Amino acid sequence: MIKYAKIQDIMQDIKNNLPIDLRIDNAQIADVFSGEFFSGSLCVHKGVIVGFSKTMPAQKVVDAKNAYLLPTFFDAHVHIESSMLSPDKFAELVIPFGTGTVIADPHEIANVKGLDGIRFMLENAKESLLDVKIMLPSCVPALPFEYAGANLSALDLAELMNDENVLGLGEMMNVPGVLMQDEKVLEKLELAAKYNKIIDGHAPMVHGDDLDMYRLAGVSTDHECTTVEEALERIRRGMYVLLREGSAAHDLVNLLPAVNAHTISNCLFCTDDKQCTDIIKRGHINNSVRLAIEHGTAPIDAIRMATINTARAYGLTHKGAIAPSYEASFMLTQDIKECNPHAVYINGELVAENGKYIATVTKTYNAKLEQLTDTIQDSMHTELPKDLTIHIPSKKARVIRLLPHSLLTKCEIMDVAVDSEGNFDFSQNKGLLKMAVVERHKKTGKIGLGLLHAEYGLQGGAIATSISHDSHNIVVAGDNDEDMLLALQEVEKMGGGIAMISKGEVLASLSLPVGGLMSMQEPQAVIADLQKLYDVAKNHYHIWDKADAFMSLSFLALPVIPDLKLTPQGLFDVTTFQFTDIAVQE
Amino acid sequence: MIKYAKIQDIMQDIKNNLPIDLRIDNAQIADVFSGEFFSGSLCVHKGVIVGFSKTMPAQKVVDAKNAYLLPTFFDAHVHIESSMLSPDKFAELVIPFGTGTVIADPHEIANVKGLDGIRFMLENAKESLLDVKIMLPSCVPALPFEYAGANLSALDLAELMNDENVLGLGEMMNVPGVLMQDEKVLEKLELAAKYNKIIDGHAPMVHGDDLDMYRLAGVSTDHECTTVEEALERIRRGMYVLLREGSAAHDLVNLLPAVNAHTISNCLFCTDDKQCTDIIKRGHINNSVRLAIEHGTAPIDAIRMATINTARAYGLTHKGAIAPSYEASFMLTQDIKECNPHAVYINGELVAENGKYIATVTKTYNAKLEQLTDTIQDSMHTELPKDLTIHIPSKKARVIRLLPHSLLTKCEIMDVAVDSEGNFDFSQNKGLLKMAVVERHKKTGKIGLGLLHAEYGLQGGAIATSISHDSHNIVVAGDNDEDMLLALQEVEKMGGGIAMISKGEVLASLSLPVGGLMSMQEPQAVIADLQKLYDVAKNHYHIWDKADAFMSLSFLALPVIPDLKLTPQGLFDVTTFQFTDIAVQE
Repeated sequence: MIKYAKIQDIMQDIKNNLPIDLRIDNAQIADVFSGEFFSGSLCVHKGVIVGFSKTMPAQKVVDAKNAYLLPTFFDAHVHIESSMLSPDKFAELVIPFGTGTVIADPHEIANVKGLDGIRFMLENAKESLLDVKIMLPSCVPALPFEYAGANLSALDLAELMNDENVLGLGEMMNVPGVLMQDEKVLEKLELAAKYNKIIDGHAPMVHGDDLDMYRLAGVSTDHECTTVEEALERIRRGMYVLLREGSAAHDLVNLLPAVNAHTISNCLFCTDDKQCTDIIKRGHINNSVRLAIEHGTAPIDAIRMATINTARAYGLTHKGAIAPSYEASFMLTQDIKECNPHAVYINGELVAENGKYIATVTKTYNAKLEQLTDTIQDSMHTELPKDLTIHIPSKKARVIRLLPHSLLTKCEIMDVAVDSEGNFDFSQNKGLLKMAVVERHKKTGKIGLGLLHAEYGLQGGAIATSISHDSHNIVVAGDNDEDMLLALQEVEKMGGGIAMISKGEVLASLSLPVGGLMSMQEPQAVIADLQKLYDVAKNHYHIWDKADAFMSLSFLALPVIPDLKLTPQGLFDVTTFQFTDIAVQE
Repeated sequence: MIKYAKIQDIMQDIKNNLPIDLRIDNAQIADVFSGEFFSGSLCVHKGVIVGFSKTMPAQKVVDAKNAYLLPTFFDAHVHIESSMLSPDKFAELVIPFGTGTVIADPHEIANVKGLDGIRFMLENAKESLLDVKIMLPSCVPALPFEYAGANLSALDLAELMNDENVLGLGEMMNVPGVLMQDEKVLEKLELAAKYNKIIDGHAPMVHGDDLDMYRLAGVSTDHECTTVEEALERIRRGMYVLLREGSAAHDLVNLLPAVNAHTISNCLFCTDDKQCTDIIKRGHINNSVRLAIEHGTAPIDAIRMATINTARAYGLTHKGAIAPSYEASFMLTQDIKECNPHAVYINGELVAENGKYIATVTKTYNAKLEQLTDTIQDSMHTELPKDLTIHIPSKKARVIRLLPHSLLTKCEIMDVAVDSEGNFDFSQNKGLLKMAVVERHKKTGKIGLGLLHAEYGLQGGAIATSISHDSHNIVVAGDNDEDMLLALQEVEKMGGGIAMISKGEVLASLSLPVGGLMSMQEPQAVIADLQKLYDVAKNHYHIWDKADAFMSLSFLALPVIPDLKLTPQGLFDVTTFQFTDIAVQE
């Protein structure tokens, strides 16, 4: 929010006829209120838009040469952790694409580090030029029995609810908890309501009376719509629908038919989860704008969904439009359809040019952040296994099988060959893989073992990752115990990350020491490392082309998506919602 | 705002399968989010909309017989005082027309009674079913030299700014004060900004750079647009434009061409000033809806401007739409074009039927309100004149002449006949009228005298009124001194109001003891009295048909509208912004 003292300063300067900081001439200015572009000048002073005068004297005058001038974009719902970059580095990556504000739910880091994880995101983001608003994660841990790094109650969240950068409660995934009126769930909803803050939703396939109740409970957004019908059903109830375009989920185009002159006010853009490698390839919210235009949306309408609509939905005043009293955060682009800005301004400063981040942020010593950064980098509390033996005397096992392009799995009952002691034997089960999930928050030594169908690929080695939704224990898969154990050690050594081991050698690795989820390296370095991991996965391990080498593994530990998942406590059958054995007894 | 404890109660009742309070079946429900009507049922419990189930058991089921079901309407800007009814009585008048929420600026009563006047409006409104939100008057007095009843600084307003029913700062009429950055004006703007509240505007004919500065200062609405260009210029700057349809100002139809699929979000309806007699004849905001539809606006768009748009513009959550978690305030109407509701529900209760207010409000003893009511009814602190002699030895006088259908006046220099002592003589100046404005707040005995052109009418008597914008001193006009003095006495005797005297007799009168502006009588009684006044004005006094007998007089004391006005300090020439004499010296 712009402080009024600043506005008064600005007014005084103008009254005193001092030259303003910046005037942009000859721009096609996007007017999100009138729904049109108009040719004109834009006057900026002390980070704020002060008007459209073409003659106001300015210290710097930029000729826009008829380029489009748009407000910077908003990501209405993002887990920054999915980029694998800390907020300040994420900022450097997305700002050149025109993103100026994100509404982030630090659900992943909160599962690792609880309130300190959220505090780290808040403080670290302040070292960047990106405006990072936070929704407090509502479901940590994701399930009561999960071995996560933290457990956040309403009382815990209350500590941060009044922070000026906290907009409300993050996606309420516990829909049954809302409908059954679970006391701990209601406490969190009540907390947000008490502070008059937003409650984000997450309600795939919730309809009719259940949706009424979910809305009644105070939830006002949903980013999980995949059909036009779902979108319209939510808009009818006054909910905001976030059209998602991320790494795995591509819902935007499917949902566009729900957007019309009336419903558009309730439609926003978000990425939810997008890896840094995808962002660098396709862009960020500008990619959503481009896609929408490509599929028939009027440019100004696409811009509205990327800007003012989100600002309004989340109560962010003086943001999301080009008008006096608004934050001077905007971009210039020649081609509105491509929407690749050649200049991005944040608070009146040029911060990115031709896709390159060029700003330097003056940092002041922040003792709180220093301490949080230390804390957050100490997240590998493991007791690594020495033995990955799986005992299957019945010779019939439950095997996890990935479904193509999906987070769903199938429980496949397979005959397996065992050695003389009844233990799973790689040499007799061509292509079948072992998996393990190792608890890493409280050194419990808990480890779950399972089998993964050969379709995944992974020949002659192992992959381990400390990203594993939602509790982020270490997942490892491989075709021999030695490489698997080494991969676990490598991940631990890096303080978290992804490691690929083959025949005792590290083929590729990515260090993610920030909670085992993120890096504080420059985006380009992380992107290069991650790209190398993907290259190895494809060319060396021949990972299935209908799966993502790492994300598929990461979601195998999430015991809410059917059918069969693996946790530190063992295999979990999501269809019966019970733990189960690998070995099938006749 | 709906308290979350209530939501939890409701959710619990539904979970326990208790029958809900009310279900409306077979309605054509206005969906302001999707911009369409849909056939369905509406479920209501404990004053809140809980969903659209057609089967949920209910204690009461109403068959809407295919009637339209709309959210109750919002008046985005109203001076309740102009209705001449206290808020609780105003509520009884407007609710049957479907109005459920008003955003009121108690500018008039504040000029009489300051903070106590505002407090009275807040407390008195709580005794009604109308949701009355308050904007704190920003310009009391209207001009620094005015003889008003109060002087409200930012420090004074700070006492009320955090009241839960106060939404911000009322119309900032002092545009020069904003542009020149008057310290006292900026303090008020800063106060609103500090509390993150709305600042209403009032900016007729302000354009370009001035408008930029006015917007930069934080003003976000304007209800003074009279042309499409003005409206669009404001919308481009992110301001909300209030399409006004009141007693005197009829801007709505002229402004409709500014409303389109994009701009509509920034367009709202308001009345500003509307007398009770006009409301009873033509309706309230439903009249605006009707007019808009009649002039080509789609019914759902007219409804949006009357409901959700205002709720959103003023940050009123859970209001202005028919959806779960929203306040159950709605109406049923058979004919959407006529928009005369046959049933109005507020918070789930049927409160008006077929234009009749049928609710009873349970009142609890409110000591604060009692005291405020006493204070507010003690507003006639006058020292009445005994002599209205006007000395014009030069025999040439400045005469106030009304312009047709306008608040503007003309200063006419006329030759006048005087008696032997040089005093104005009625008998020799056929039709010419005397006027006086008598200070009534602080018993100063100040009295301004003037002459009014014969065109106004008023034969054989006098009219006096304690409504006179903005300071609300007593204005009297007449064709003889005796009736004028009697009229003043009569107004004082009533504790404020309007009196018509002819040949020593009271022909008609309306008692307005609440600050000399409003009545606490039933609307029908006030309407009958006021109607009688108008009948006498027309049939007995033959008042000019291009003027409003009472409003024209009331505005003759407002020294901001050109050319010539009368104040307790004498004639004021608005064009030179200086006091002037009646007598013109050669």
